[in-house]
Amino acid sequence: MNRGAPHEVPDDGLSTAERRRRPALILNTGHGKGKTTAAFGTALRAWHQGWSIGVYQFVKSGRWRSGERVAFEQLDRTHREAGIGGPVSWQTLGAGLTFRRPGADRGEQSAAARRAWAEVSAGLAAERHDLYVLDEFTYPLAYGWLPVDEVVSTLARRPGVQHVIITGRDAPQALLDIATTVTEMVKVKHPFDEGQKGQAGIEW
Amino acid sequence: MNRGAPHEVPDDGLSTAERRRRPALILNTGHGKGKTTAAFGTALRAWHQGWSIGVYQFVKSGRWRSGERVAFEQLDRTHREAGIGGPVSWQTLGAGLTFRRPGADRGEQSAAARRAWAEVSAGLAAERHDLYVLDEFTYPLAYGWLPVDEVVSTLARRPGVQHVIITGRDAPQALLDIATTVTEMVKVKHPFDEGQKGQAGIEW
Repeated sequence: MNRGAPHEVPDDGLSTAERRRRPALILNTGHGKGKTTAAFGTALRAWHQGWSIGVYQFVKSGRWRSGERVAFEQLDRTHREAGIGGPVSWQTLGAGLTFRRPGADRGEQSAAARRAWAEVSAGLAAERHDLYVLDEFTYPLAYGWLPVDEVVSTLARRPGVQHVIITGRDAPQALLDIATTVTEMVKVKHPFDEGQKGQAGIEW
Repeated sequence: MNRGAPHEVPDDGLSTAERRRRPALILNTGHGKGKTTAAFGTALRAWHQGWSIGVYQFVKSGRWRSGERVAFEQLDRTHREAGIGGPVSWQTLGAGLTFRRPGADRGEQSAAARRAWAEVSAGLAAERHDLYVLDEFTYPLAYGWLPVDEVVSTLARRPGVQHVIITGRDAPQALLDIATTVTEMVKVKHPFDEGQKGQAGIEW
């Protein structure tokens, strides 16, 4: 496999090594499947490099642990006990909150989103992690619970080489503008359209 | 989170439990990033359910181990030693082959693809795994190294509840037709276009 050959080499005075180390801001958006799973698949590669990974889930409930969370807990243990891979920390919005639950308290949810973002922001300032996974982060932005301008500015000015992966539908344009990689997951065919139910092992 | 609510409930006489257990054939295609990483992100969920997972990489070289391979080796060890998650077996095309290497022996590569497919086919007949990841499987089909009709027929008639995820560009129409879920990963923005080099932890 050709390891990431560029289409053309820019005249920017940077060495290949410097160009490799540029901080990535990867955005997985669109209405198809694969936004979150692709983020965690990329996190497996980061883990293998020994990177410190911080996962922040902005929507999923903290009441049940997803398959990817249990797997990364074990990979974090492997790091600590066997020295293979990197450390992984995982934070959900907490309190079993999920934005989409009918009747949930919106004020409480938006406060929880602001607390989680404050943690991310503090982590970026302290260069705490090599990779941040901000899962379903577009929703608190789209709902107006986090100020888009401040978030985009904080992300754009993050110090050092800190990579960020953001997932979710309906990403604001300002986020698209500062992203280095944007992929739209487009639904071509989905079994829910034909009445199929979600199933363990595939959807969570 | 609403765990996979269907848009409408079909009048097919199946219970919800039966509808949940339908074997999935998931196809991640398109020219954007995230096809392979989404497949392995889904495999993390399957692992957590204790499913047996068989990974078959049809293009990546066997000479170096990707981050996702090392991670799943550790998750397989966690299964064996701690009884958490399921078993994972991993097979590359072998012999350090990679289809895209200029000057590589095409006869040798197509024979390697046929050997790998024979293993998949035998596994399906024996109901060896709960989930098969056929990574970059569309390429040997597109190159004519595997007979599309036979492959599609074998996949469509696989016994029991065996889930399959296939990744790669340019999937043949017959494969799209039998897939239960198809997602197209569309490139909106990619740093390679601006001369960025691929980097460890992100691209492998």
